[in-house]
Amino acid sequence: MPTLEVWFEFASTYSYPALMRVEARARQAGVALAYRPFLLGPIFASQGWKDSPFNIYEAKGKYMWRDLARICAAEGLPLRRPSVFPRNGLLAARVAYSGGQQAWVPAFVRGVYDANFAEDREISSPEVLASILSAVGQDPAARLALAASDEVKAGLREQNESAQRRGIFGAPSFCAGDELFWGNDRLEQALAWATQR
Amino acid sequence: MPTLEVWFEFASTYSYPALMRVEARARQAGVALAYRPFLLGPIFASQGWKDSPFNIYEAKGKYMWRDLARICAAEGLPLRRPSVFPRNGLLAARVAYSGGQQAWVPAFVRGVYDANFAEDREISSPEVLASILSAVGQDPAARLALAASDEVKAGLREQNESAQRRGIFGAPSFCAGDELFWGNDRLEQALAWATQR
Repeated sequence: MPTLEVWFEFASTYSYPALMRVEARARQAGVALAYRPFLLGPIFASQGWKDSPFNIYEAKGKYMWRDLARICAAEGLPLRRPSVFPRNGLLAARVAYSGGQQAWVPAFVRGVYDANFAEDREISSPEVLASILSAVGQDPAARLALAASDEVKAGLREQNESAQRRGIFGAPSFCAGDELFWGNDRLEQALAWATQR
Repeated sequence: MPTLEVWFEFASTYSYPALMRVEARARQAGVALAYRPFLLGPIFASQGWKDSPFNIYEAKGKYMWRDLARICAAEGLPLRRPSVFPRNGLLAARVAYSGGQQAWVPAFVRGVYDANFAEDREISSPEVLASILSAVGQDPAARLALAASDEVKAGLREQNESAQRRGIFGAPSFCAGDELFWGNDRLEQALAWATQR
């Protein structure tokens, strides 16, 4: 079965509609997914940005929120603009990373995006993540302890360096072999590319 | 008939596939087009960029050229990466602006994009623009003289200020009333929006 790598950041606005439909679209296309949580902060920092470009560049940010609202309306996705943006997705990324390819991970990922962009909850909070872990049938205490382990911390750091080596500069990004696709708009094209390799 | 404003910059890579198909797509959709040539340079400068972001941010630039190649291949458009990027589109924008809604303007616009992105010709050169003007049945000397007039220079400057007031920050952009759409990817959505108003 062809595989598509899905690179996402929990603070990323356009990752929200992408990650909410990627499982269903991949199933239809007959493509297996490899989840690759990562952090945009270090990548933006290496470009000289200390904040989201949507906060730094006002016109771009204003447009993004309107564009995202249109996209969510078209997909029937609820959207409540987060009162804090961007939220710190580090702990959630460690939890997702620690889950590897386990079956609960996609539902956890959707739960975090739902919390951030539909419910305006603080996804950097262990309590919020614990409630999402419970909802997907995981033991919160054990999962959060694993996420805090040196092995997971180092593994996510290495994954982030791998993102940069591959030329990833934004989220969501999709990799079919060496072919890189960037943006929610490119999900369908990336799935089609993966099946044709 | 509903109208869509098409804001474009001759140096802009993603404006190339958009402007090459916009006439045909608008005809199918029953939408009238209003051409709005403008310049990204002053807008980028106000964001602190002295060059194209595709030159400033290396990973983003590398991705853009690959993405553009995929788009052009899918649309059957020739693409030769310009040996100079971004080219100065000021004179071409003045010529297009001076033509207003005259019938030759869309073919001239396509001719300039073809010169820049398929033939790697220097679109800031009056000789190159003269050859494109001849090909669309216009008198090059008269057109270039008009483009150099104070009225046209001031008019294009005013149009650029209008772009910034409307929140335009990149090209191509499309306006259906107050609704802004950014990017080649959004052309079809913008046309649909225009017809539903």
